[in-house]
Amino acid sequence: MRKVAVVVTARPSYSRIKTALEAIRSHQDLRLQLVVSASALLDRYGSAVEVINRDGFEIASKVYSVLEGEDPALMAKTTGVGMIELATAFTNLQPDIVVTIADRFETMATAITAAYMNIPLAHIQGGEITGNIDEKVRHSVTKLADYHLVSSKKAAERVLRLGEAEDSVFVTGCPSIDLACEVKHEKELTFDPFVKYGGVGKSMSLSNGYLVVLQHPVTTDHAHSQWQITETLHAVRDLGIPCLWFWPNVDAGTDGTSRGIRSFREQFSPTNIHFFMNMEPTDFLRLLHSSKGIVGNSSVAIRECAYLGVPAVNIGNRQEGRDRGRNVIDVSYDREAIKAAIQQHIKNDRYESENIYGSGLAGKAIADVLASVKLRSHKMLPF
Amino acid sequence: MRKVAVVVTARPSYSRIKTALEAIRSHQDLRLQLVVSASALLDRYGSAVEVINRDGFEIASKVYSVLEGEDPALMAKTTGVGMIELATAFTNLQPDIVVTIADRFETMATAITAAYMNIPLAHIQGGEITGNIDEKVRHSVTKLADYHLVSSKKAAERVLRLGEAEDSVFVTGCPSIDLACEVKHEKELTFDPFVKYGGVGKSMSLSNGYLVVLQHPVTTDHAHSQWQITETLHAVRDLGIPCLWFWPNVDAGTDGTSRGIRSFREQFSPTNIHFFMNMEPTDFLRLLHSSKGIVGNSSVAIRECAYLGVPAVNIGNRQEGRDRGRNVIDVSYDREAIKAAIQQHIKNDRYESENIYGSGLAGKAIADVLASVKLRSHKMLPF
Amino acid sequence: MRKVAVVVTARPSYSRIKTALEAIRSHQDLRLQLVVSASALLDRYGSAVEVINRDGFEIASKVYSVLEGEDPALMAKTTGVGMIELATAFTNLQPDIVVTIADRFETMATAITAAYMNIPLAHIQGGEITGNIDEKVRHSVTKLADYHLVSSKKAAERVLRLGEAEDSVFVTGCPSIDLACEVKHEKELTFDPFVKYGGVGKSMSLSNGYLVVLQHPVTTDHAHSQWQITETLHAVRDLGIPCLWFWPNVDAGTDGTSRGIRSFREQFSPTNIHFFMNMEPTDFLRLLHSSKGIVGNSSVAIRECAYLGVPAVNIGNRQEGRDRGRNVIDVSYDREAIKAAIQQHIKNDRYESENIYGSGLAGKAIADVLASVKLRSHKMLPF
Amino acid sequence: MRKVAVVVTARPSYSRIKTALEAIRSHQDLRLQLVVSASALLDRYGSAVEVINRDGFEIASKVYSVLEGEDPALMAKTTGVGMIELATAFTNLQPDIVVTIADRFETMATAITAAYMNIPLAHIQGGEITGNIDEKVRHSVTKLADYHLVSSKKAAERVLRLGEAEDSVFVTGCPSIDLACEVKHEKELTFDPFVKYGGVGKSMSLSNGYLVVLQHPVTTDHAHSQWQITETLHAVRDLGIPCLWFWPNVDAGTDGTSRGIRSFREQFSPTNIHFFMNMEPTDFLRLLHSSKGIVGNSSVAIRECAYLGVPAVNIGNRQEGRDRGRNVIDVSYDREAIKAAIQQHIKNDRYESENIYGSGLAGKAIADVLASVKLRSHKMLPF
Repeated sequence: MRKVAVVVTARPSYSRIKTALEAIRSHQDLRLQLVVSASALLDRYGSAVEVINRDGFEIASKVYSVLEGEDPALMAKTTGVGMIELATAFTNLQPDIVVTIADRFETMATAITAAYMNIPLAHIQGGEITGNIDEKVRHSVTKLADYHLVSSKKAAERVLRLGEAEDSVFVTGCPSIDLACEVKHEKELTFDPFVKYGGVGKSMSLSNGYLVVLQHPVTTDHAHSQWQITETLHAVRDLGIPCLWFWPNVDAGTDGTSRGIRSFREQFSPTNIHFFMNMEPTDFLRLLHSSKGIVGNSSVAIRECAYLGVPAVNIGNRQEGRDRGRNVIDVSYDREAIKAAIQQHIKNDRYESENIYGSGLAGKAIADVLASVKLRSHKMLPF
Repeated sequence: MRKVAVVVTARPSYSRIKTALEAIRSHQDLRLQLVVSASALLDRYGSAVEVINRDGFEIASKVYSVLEGEDPALMAKTTGVGMIELATAFTNLQPDIVVTIADRFETMATAITAAYMNIPLAHIQGGEITGNIDEKVRHSVTKLADYHLVSSKKAAERVLRLGEAEDSVFVTGCPSIDLACEVKHEKELTFDPFVKYGGVGKSMSLSNGYLVVLQHPVTTDHAHSQWQITETLHAVRDLGIPCLWFWPNVDAGTDGTSRGIRSFREQFSPTNIHFFMNMEPTDFLRLLHSSKGIVGNSSVAIRECAYLGVPAVNIGNRQEGRDRGRNVIDVSYDREAIKAAIQQHIKNDRYESENIYGSGLAGKAIADVLASVKLRSHKMLPF
Repeated sequence: MRKVAVVVTARPSYSRIKTALEAIRSHQDLRLQLVVSASALLDRYGSAVEVINRDGFEIASKVYSVLEGEDPALMAKTTGVGMIELATAFTNLQPDIVVTIADRFETMATAITAAYMNIPLAHIQGGEITGNIDEKVRHSVTKLADYHLVSSKKAAERVLRLGEAEDSVFVTGCPSIDLACEVKHEKELTFDPFVKYGGVGKSMSLSNGYLVVLQHPVTTDHAHSQWQITETLHAVRDLGIPCLWFWPNVDAGTDGTSRGIRSFREQFSPTNIHFFMNMEPTDFLRLLHSSKGIVGNSSVAIRECAYLGVPAVNIGNRQEGRDRGRNVIDVSYDREAIKAAIQQHIKNDRYESENIYGSGLAGKAIADVLASVKLRSHKMLPF
Repeated sequence: MRKVAVVVTARPSYSRIKTALEAIRSHQDLRLQLVVSASALLDRYGSAVEVINRDGFEIASKVYSVLEGEDPALMAKTTGVGMIELATAFTNLQPDIVVTIADRFETMATAITAAYMNIPLAHIQGGEITGNIDEKVRHSVTKLADYHLVSSKKAAERVLRLGEAEDSVFVTGCPSIDLACEVKHEKELTFDPFVKYGGVGKSMSLSNGYLVVLQHPVTTDHAHSQWQITETLHAVRDLGIPCLWFWPNVDAGTDGTSRGIRSFREQFSPTNIHFFMNMEPTDFLRLLHSSKGIVGNSSVAIRECAYLGVPAVNIGNRQEGRDRGRNVIDVSYDREAIKAAIQQHIKNDRYESENIYGSGLAGKAIADVLASVKLRSHKMLPF
């Protein structure tokens, strides 16, 4: 039985990896050790822990590492605390393989700790392009990782060009698409988000269509977070379409974003916007699937929504460079541009499904790779 | 005036960067902020601090981060503490550029902290191949760095193949060769190492030739450190040639190495081996330049000694993959093989100088790049 | 010039020490080094930083240390991070004396760091009795401190009985009373809290009287935080009197308290309660001075309100053992008991002023002690 | 079954607590959770771990926390790291009681972490007087502890005067005396220390008597450590009596002490001094019991040697204030004074046994208290 420690650092990472977790848990040659850390443990970013518990996963270790405050130095310090704590967790769990997901800054703690402890490291979602600090993190993790379980052929090519060995790269697809696959054939919304998740704001009728908004602060200019979020708030309020707005996950600029939202609510009491902290990943996809479109800068808009054919208005440069389908319109932080893009999408209606990031079987494929791959933690540049 | 924070984490890194530090300090457009951290602060690894003070550099910040003990988890924890502390140091110093050197595990703390604080990061000695955990660290730092000041054309090619932009790569040569350049034309040893540096063991006549030994523990199999060092000890004692042995720098296996040396001394009281903790870099090069050869696994044997033409017996795989000249014979951890290689070298005598890692002007070239390069801390994979 | 580093870890500590900070800053023999740390740096606990800036104090060092999450282990970890960071801050500032305030758990980081670095330590507000973990912290800090600047004769007696030397104990009074002294003679409220501080909820007419509520979670049974706060919310809503409610400061159970408040608001939309995050200390005292009473478990109710003669309903055991005046009615976490106590107070109206915690000159007295006391950092139990 | 976590931070603490560990382990109502931390994990301070393993104790958790370097700030930082790590260890172990021993600076980490996590805390050896930073630590820990298992009636009186409740104080005696009790009736030395423990230096005949030296650096003036140790080295060398010298445990000044010893050995090659890193506690007591006396500043000289009647020369103020018997002569750091005191003792020969710190049954008594005491973690000053 190989022990596979998967480190989940945030709500969206959990959603992205869920089907792989299920496949690892039920694989006869693997034992899952789920480590929940960083903002995935925090109430105010939508407690991933509750969702994880509800999904029936046992948590092997909780690793608190988020140093609170609004200062860029805290990203480094939080990562440092994460390394101190993960080294203890790995010492206790003695995993045979560690799995790290995507490109959030805290994933660096997972990658370095595994590498320095000579534990083979598998990286999910390497080889993609995003821009920003995520870009540095993602490819830096690639150079620390021993196995690369990537979403697409294009990603695989990039990882190979970065000097990784052919036998270390596996195109499994992205497990987030597995979830989207489950909801794709549902004809209509099967739950009432206001009843099931509460949130802040009035209930609204969703029968004539609604928008979903998810806009993260962009870490490298966090001073601007407040006005950036305010532009989107104005655009959505002006249109008057019912809007389900999701609270962003932790980052250096989150407090600017939070402040922007709070201040806007105080001043304008928008009646067509309802705020949610969190939602089970599958319900979130259901909501997207039945919506008129998604607005913001989440990768969900680029990835899952390409597969689901949901219109997406992508704001700013957070998703710059990421491979995208026909469903995406890119705009800047400008309320008028945002409004225009939403209106154009509403005219177009839905898009054709595209398989850019996988076809729905990634979880199983990932578990199979983890079970069969030869264990190793050394490598050397081939050129 | 650009503020350039150079983070030195170990004795050998200081020696490697010294001429660049001098060039930065005396450059009219730069202000040097020297940060001394990790094992560079520790007495028992040969206090780099004393040498630094003697060389007249002002230390802007001391960053203690080494968690003591013999456990692989401590490499991760030490790096974590380093990140917490460096984030504070950078907050106080507000550098315009941070410089990190080579591939030791603690350099990761420098690289991540700078990256997460959006401070442009310059990496000295990227693009080289070493094997082991250093290999992961080096290329991972490359993916976090904004500028690459490399030792050789071959290194530059590798960095470019890793997806770095052409205008971010500069072949400056390695500043360690600058020091070697200074001593290359000295005809004979200008100081008495026993008088100047003390050390443990008897004084010996060096006039009929002597060997220098520097053998680091190899982190990924630190349990074996003790017997590995013992093979070398036996080889050197058997040959009876005077031998100046240098204490290794900090690492997960150092205590095994230390124990090996102590235990050998107790048991065999070797009369032809004298132990040193540390030496000024230039004196160390003088010693090499006048020696019959170097034994162990230090990169000095591959780099500076190629330039100086000093015979080198390289033991084990620590330098695997590193570009090397005619002066190197590779052997395994085997006392007989080590003896045979030393004897072969002694027959051959000196080698021709080779310019693999630079021609002696790297310090100035590095300072010029740091003064003129456009400041930026974002990048994106071009493929 | 003696350098005096005062470490402020929370909003209420700042308010408590403010007049002493002013007196230190303007004292000719002292130089103030204000260190702001822990929850005093955090937006969501009412940013003390903004108030401090507005008051014109220069901040010598910001020390982020709060590890976010709801787990009792995090109080210890936060204190540990605080020690790591404060040791750096003290190394940079080189204070001659460090001042720590009262009994919050983070103050332990200040006390130990100063003690271990052999910096003379002055403790404000030792010798008082509170119960809970604060009680352990307060007297433990007393045993680490070299000088004790206490609020009352009774506190001085206790510190002496704890084995502290007579010449180390000074009855200066509590500087929080100095602020109360300033507002005591104002006839009416000189500002509109809704206009000046915003907050959440509707504006209300305060002319017929209002209540102030400040209820902290009690760390040692933080699972109960939510129902405890809910009892108070019901009591205050039932009475229908306008109520200005202040958000509590950070603690292991804060999230339970926050959840309680949020959930109550969603469910009952109370129209007579307005929520504030923070307020300048003097304005807060003005508000108390003009109020019909204070409800909750804050020490302000016991200390400043004794001096001001403001009725106080003290809930639960957080203030157990603290010397109190006639203005306090103690009740349990029970909405009916809380309502009854408020109604009884409203019948009684104001109380006579009592000087239990000082007479309004503490700030100056503290600065004078710090300027004149003989520096030392050793002591020995006299019995 | 109560789970009792005992945190051992150093070699001497282990020796001091050993019989209590045995009694806890074999007690039917207790389960021992042995946590080994700080310098107890480090080879160069004499690995307590090896001795612990040899004694057959299972180690529940290893907590590395020592930040290496010679800087007073590192005592605080090491304690901070200890708190972060111990909080994780206690979360995993879920002890019902935590036990902390004596007064070393790292014990503060144990005490605070237990207190903040609401785990009942028992303190061994409270109420004693030592001077220096230890004094602050010891009484500060008393104010955090819920139970006090003290060595003597005098210590119990002090703890009570510090405001601790009568039912929380137990005079168990010091478990270190239990070990002394075991060896007291042995007629002669039953092992050869040179054969069994190696060490550095020549073997010597011990049949005409010998001295034992153990001198710790005094943290608060660590710059002087080197000359202080040098005075003792001269004294002992001048006398020419065979001398077994024990390496001190970790502390801010240890490197000064180490340097002093190394430098003295290089310069004077003393032939009558043999250096040991560590020894099993019982063997160490045997060695003392058969010796002509102990020199230095260890508490062993005051405690166990009072019981054994072994002459002691106590140097400097490290043991100031500690209750002592007729066997102790106090001197300053002065080679002539040290020599004179040793010579006077040799004239006197052995002293009568005194029961100041217990009569040999402390281990059992401590286990019985831990098994029967009512669990609680709150208290309040009674005056």
